[in-house]
Amino acid sequence: MAATAVQQQQYKSLAAELAKRFGEDAAQRDKEGGTPKEQRDWIRDSGLLKLLIPLEYGGDGGQWSDVLWVVREFARTDAALAHVYGYHFLCLVAPHLAGSELQKAYFYETTAKHNYFWGNSSNPLEKSIIGTRLEDGAILVNGSKSFSSGSPDSDLLAISWNDSSSGDYYEGIIPTSRPGVTVHDDWDNMGQRQTGSGKVSFESVRVEPDEILETPYAGQTVFSTLIPQLSQSILASIFIGSAAGALDEAKSYTKTKSRPWYTSGLDDASAEPSTISRYGELWMAYQSALSLVEKSDRELDIIWARDVALTEAERGECAVIVAAANVQASRMALEVTSRIFEVMGARATASRYGYDRFWRNVRTHSLHNPAEFKLRTVGNWFLNDQAPVPGFYS
Amino acid sequence: MAATAVQQQQYKSLAAELAKRFGEDAAQRDKEGGTPKEQRDWIRDSGLLKLLIPLEYGGDGGQWSDVLWVVREFARTDAALAHVYGYHFLCLVAPHLAGSELQKAYFYETTAKHNYFWGNSSNPLEKSIIGTRLEDGAILVNGSKSFSSGSPDSDLLAISWNDSSSGDYYEGIIPTSRPGVTVHDDWDNMGQRQTGSGKVSFESVRVEPDEILETPYAGQTVFSTLIPQLSQSILASIFIGSAAGALDEAKSYTKTKSRPWYTSGLDDASAEPSTISRYGELWMAYQSALSLVEKSDRELDIIWARDVALTEAERGECAVIVAAANVQASRMALEVTSRIFEVMGARATASRYGYDRFWRNVRTHSLHNPAEFKLRTVGNWFLNDQAPVPGFYS
Amino acid sequence: MAATAVQQQQYKSLAAELAKRFGEDAAQRDKEGGTPKEQRDWIRDSGLLKLLIPLEYGGDGGQWSDVLWVVREFARTDAALAHVYGYHFLCLVAPHLAGSELQKAYFYETTAKHNYFWGNSSNPLEKSIIGTRLEDGAILVNGSKSFSSGSPDSDLLAISWNDSSSGDYYEGIIPTSRPGVTVHDDWDNMGQRQTGSGKVSFESVRVEPDEILETPYAGQTVFSTLIPQLSQSILASIFIGSAAGALDEAKSYTKTKSRPWYTSGLDDASAEPSTISRYGELWMAYQSALSLVEKSDRELDIIWARDVALTEAERGECAVIVAAANVQASRMALEVTSRIFEVMGARATASRYGYDRFWRNVRTHSLHNPAEFKLRTVGNWFLNDQAPVPGFYS
Amino acid sequence: MAATAVQQQQYKSLAAELAKRFGEDAAQRDKEGGTPKEQRDWIRDSGLLKLLIPLEYGGDGGQWSDVLWVVREFARTDAALAHVYGYHFLCLVAPHLAGSELQKAYFYETTAKHNYFWGNSSNPLEKSIIGTRLEDGAILVNGSKSFSSGSPDSDLLAISWNDSSSGDYYEGIIPTSRPGVTVHDDWDNMGQRQTGSGKVSFESVRVEPDEILETPYAGQTVFSTLIPQLSQSILASIFIGSAAGALDEAKSYTKTKSRPWYTSGLDDASAEPSTISRYGELWMAYQSALSLVEKSDRELDIIWARDVALTEAERGECAVIVAAANVQASRMALEVTSRIFEVMGARATASRYGYDRFWRNVRTHSLHNPAEFKLRTVGNWFLNDQAPVPGFYS
Repeated sequence: MAATAVQQQQYKSLAAELAKRFGEDAAQRDKEGGTPKEQRDWIRDSGLLKLLIPLEYGGDGGQWSDVLWVVREFARTDAALAHVYGYHFLCLVAPHLAGSELQKAYFYETTAKHNYFWGNSSNPLEKSIIGTRLEDGAILVNGSKSFSSGSPDSDLLAISWNDSSSGDYYEGIIPTSRPGVTVHDDWDNMGQRQTGSGKVSFESVRVEPDEILETPYAGQTVFSTLIPQLSQSILASIFIGSAAGALDEAKSYTKTKSRPWYTSGLDDASAEPSTISRYGELWMAYQSALSLVEKSDRELDIIWARDVALTEAERGECAVIVAAANVQASRMALEVTSRIFEVMGARATASRYGYDRFWRNVRTHSLHNPAEFKLRTVGNWFLNDQAPVPGFYS
Repeated sequence: MAATAVQQQQYKSLAAELAKRFGEDAAQRDKEGGTPKEQRDWIRDSGLLKLLIPLEYGGDGGQWSDVLWVVREFARTDAALAHVYGYHFLCLVAPHLAGSELQKAYFYETTAKHNYFWGNSSNPLEKSIIGTRLEDGAILVNGSKSFSSGSPDSDLLAISWNDSSSGDYYEGIIPTSRPGVTVHDDWDNMGQRQTGSGKVSFESVRVEPDEILETPYAGQTVFSTLIPQLSQSILASIFIGSAAGALDEAKSYTKTKSRPWYTSGLDDASAEPSTISRYGELWMAYQSALSLVEKSDRELDIIWARDVALTEAERGECAVIVAAANVQASRMALEVTSRIFEVMGARATASRYGYDRFWRNVRTHSLHNPAEFKLRTVGNWFLNDQAPVPGFYS
Repeated sequence: MAATAVQQQQYKSLAAELAKRFGEDAAQRDKEGGTPKEQRDWIRDSGLLKLLIPLEYGGDGGQWSDVLWVVREFARTDAALAHVYGYHFLCLVAPHLAGSELQKAYFYETTAKHNYFWGNSSNPLEKSIIGTRLEDGAILVNGSKSFSSGSPDSDLLAISWNDSSSGDYYEGIIPTSRPGVTVHDDWDNMGQRQTGSGKVSFESVRVEPDEILETPYAGQTVFSTLIPQLSQSILASIFIGSAAGALDEAKSYTKTKSRPWYTSGLDDASAEPSTISRYGELWMAYQSALSLVEKSDRELDIIWARDVALTEAERGECAVIVAAANVQASRMALEVTSRIFEVMGARATASRYGYDRFWRNVRTHSLHNPAEFKLRTVGNWFLNDQAPVPGFYS
Repeated sequence: MAATAVQQQQYKSLAAELAKRFGEDAAQRDKEGGTPKEQRDWIRDSGLLKLLIPLEYGGDGGQWSDVLWVVREFARTDAALAHVYGYHFLCLVAPHLAGSELQKAYFYETTAKHNYFWGNSSNPLEKSIIGTRLEDGAILVNGSKSFSSGSPDSDLLAISWNDSSSGDYYEGIIPTSRPGVTVHDDWDNMGQRQTGSGKVSFESVRVEPDEILETPYAGQTVFSTLIPQLSQSILASIFIGSAAGALDEAKSYTKTKSRPWYTSGLDDASAEPSTISRYGELWMAYQSALSLVEKSDRELDIIWARDVALTEAERGECAVIVAAANVQASRMALEVTSRIFEVMGARATASRYGYDRFWRNVRTHSLHNPAEFKLRTVGNWFLNDQAPVPGFYS
């Protein structure tokens, strides 16, 4: 256990160092889009891909709050890499949540051993992939999926399909290199431009029986329904990190490049009282949302540790704070990433700085599922004492 | 220590029970103003006046975060009683912060033993009280102070004066019953109406040498300058509790009295989706500010434990989060206490409910010292890496 | 016509003078509640009760925008008198909207001649008054109505009932002194305290045939459905005037009573840059909402002049801008009436100033019908090109 | 005069048609940046470059409110073209404001006759251009200017310099083709990407005596100091138009592409009540800011017509509403252009739509001069009854 505490310090400095390196050309890479192969390999080399894997499976035994700490750190300079890193774990725990004990163990172990980077090509709302059951128990999968974040350069891919006879929804895990899989790498969006969230198509792709997750989504245990809470927590930390990064850049700019307004009588832009109090406002908003996210992360650690003993009431209480933290973080981040320009000034809009990417990233990601429906989840719990019904997004 | 843990559970249920009893006629008492003698005696009887007093002096050994928890609980139903309860401790620790070891011990012990309720009649910005040093070392105090919260029905009174020769600022502790002291009980304000924050006048009041605090305000140790952080923390918790109480009342009203809008097609106001999501918003805002306040309270416990070893850097970091928490809590509470009406409806404005008192209380108290200057403190720390200069309000 | 232009200048100075007189004890009267008989008589004496009555019926031939100008002026010092003044006209035009030509002429003329002050005791959502048709065509009315604004000290009363056989909704006009009518004057609310919006009960009250409005509400012409637009416009102007009055008071207070913050280094609170820019913000918000209300008032004049030729499309377009102006004005006024305290300081919360009444008035009145449903009206028109369905509140 | 009224209708339809054509590839051109030569020529061909030129000089005799109407219309689809169009007039009136009668006449006439498109390369805050007076009265200008909006493809160029001996600030007008002038066309910014606001350098460029404006900036008449009000009004209308355009696109997207949320039970995204009321909010905010801008434009027409008779008090009152309208419009537009995504959904962030350009344009342009200082101008007028001191930006 002492070892883990040491490791925790280590993962924090590793993450900080990586974030710093990401930042060196993040503005340029944002313009380019595509897949940041080099940076993804830095993540692989860092060992951080096994942070959450339990010690008994060869991992570092971290908690979700540790992963989310890293997500925030990465997002300070590169929200796209923060996203694929966070979603790596979202996919990786699918067998833990919805698979057999064997599958859970296998996928944790093989990931730890080979340092696999997972990508996501499952999406419960799209019904564009059909799986046909073969006589040997395998599934033959055909169709295509959009929004496959982290699929380019991934080693393993979480996929989903609807059964050709029953229509039921299934998930599975396959190597990205499996014949028939084409990763199109065609993501071209206003934000989160290096997440590779484009199309993956499947042409008669075999999914072997032990790659099929036993439990369909939203299945027999409460624990198996935690994907929305994990996903919302990852996104909340991307928002927080993006805001932190925007504040970092703004501070540095104000201190070194901003000019005092010509009527202010000041020598230094950073001495302008209205600028100072505006920084106070932005930091306060940031810190307030961060505090809620940290509280939410602690709740998540607790319910994660409950594993299959998790009750609906426990899940519900956590789901509410996770949803609130997600929405609060996204609103704060939209505000902060837009208002930083007011404390930097007109020249900070030059394209070479790329400071608008913070807002573009947050704006893009904050639409992942509508805030309105998350707020209803929260409100319904507070007003009507109803726990959220476990679902794809709640 | 195990005993203390038990006591902590006890103080929470005691506080919750008191809050409930306060709530029974809080709306009525708000209209009346004046001094809630009966309720103040309930606080006395509860034993909660010694919550913060260290075990070695006969107290319960609670932390500031415990006191602030109680303040929030009280403020759910009665922000005035929450205020005088919080300020009881603000005054009580003055000898700890700025007095000798003997004074600290004496005032802790005498308070624990006699269950004293402290009132506040010190104010560094008013120079309306003059102290003249007598030959025997005592001070003869003349003048009057406004904003003397908790002075009516108090047992001990924290006072302050400016020395007649040097002009220096001093503080002292006297029994409220000391000859020459008149508590006018003339507070008549739009909010916080039962805090008794009116005038106290002093006519040739003797302050004995051992009642004079050795260290003038903002004195020789960093630790002695913590009053602003304590005061801001108490107020932050009053704001949080006020918002919580407003939400409690609103929920109950919406569930039992609100009517669905006639075009909504609903049987029940609490089923209206826009009402539900609005409750979600309000709870999210509340929870976010609460999380920041809780984080701030934990920081306060840490620096309080540092005692005279406290450094300026440690104080500064805590002062910044305390200031941010105070401002965020006040803004959230203003918003929540105003918007609850939108989820209750027009009939909730009837005078008998007195629901406007939540907003009136928060609005009144949030002006205690200007948010603008607290935000500059925060901003200057973030932008310019400058710790706040210890002062009367920073 | 030249005469009318002169009269317009006259009504403006008359209104301004009345507003000033109302202001002298408005804070005190707000505390007392009840009926401001003296001030109501000043309004009577001013001649302003016939401002909207067409010249041919002995009135001053003003437009709705003139009435709304006066409403705003009154609301600067007394939002309750502004309300009963505005609703005087809302009731007075009921025969014009929904009555016969004879009724329209009669009620305009009799009001101009006797200088009648109208009160309101009709409410389409309450079904608590039943009218039984007698053999002679008169109606016998029994029951009671809450929210009867302006009923105490009124001369004529607009009432409504549901028919005992058909259940249909009807309106009528009776003298308040009609036997069987009891004005309870029991209004006790957190805001708008002198509007007399209490209960009126009816015990076998006869409504004569020529007092019954021919056309039931929402009747045969589009023109007859304009009550919601008139009512929303009156309220919008009360919000605007309340905000203007709050700004007036705040300015005066800041200039003469506020103290500069002790660390600001300024001699004068009104020289503090953050205070100055905050006033800039408040005035900007006020002016922006006012501009929308003025635009909306101009639209209202236009559709009013269309009379029975008014089309649904014309009504719809106007209804949308009226609804938007109402909601924008209410939000701005809530903000301004709450934030004025920040530019005045803590001592401005003393009860004797009564500055909280601005917020209490706006908060109370802004709940008249839910903003959410007005916003849907607006959004449905913009997004779905659907004109609002004429109704009791849309 | 009747002819002008007809022409006004004509300019509106011309502008609307141009805006529509701009919109066809505005998203693509935003990505490319550079100079939209083809679209600039459409403006030239439309005749709209002489809209403001008085009839007696061969123009269309429009008012500033007409120009600003066109600016808003253009900005619906292309805020960059709206900017260069508005600034064309800002430069064109420099001789009217600050030149001799002859210069005013000459530049109006030559512009009307040759259909010249003006660009801007003057900036009072940059002191990077030095003018040396030659014996023949001409000036030899050397140096370079950044932020030269509309300089590429311009026919005439408004320039400024500081005198090499006195340091005084001067303005002048030269043909862009004058030897020694290099338009670098190097503007590369996050927003307003086709305004060509890059560098212009001057190598021994002669400015002839009759090209030098007689009156230095902020000169002998009040009228000569109106540049800030004109500039702020143009920007306000760009903000308004940008918001209108964003709402246009959002409406079209929601109606044709958005999907209802899978738990909403609706077939159509545009039937979702929360989406409808959010559109209501956005339109309300837009309409409120527009109303203030329209009011401000009317004030501007009035003071423009005052010409050299303009007084400081008149200028001041107008300057205040212009400043307020500018700030309100910018805030509203930032909000609207960010929130449209919430009513469109996640797929609206695809790069091919380019919907983020609305926010990027507004964010970039709203920093032109700090809102804080404009708000102080407003606040100082309201609170302290002080008219803004005429200056480069106030």
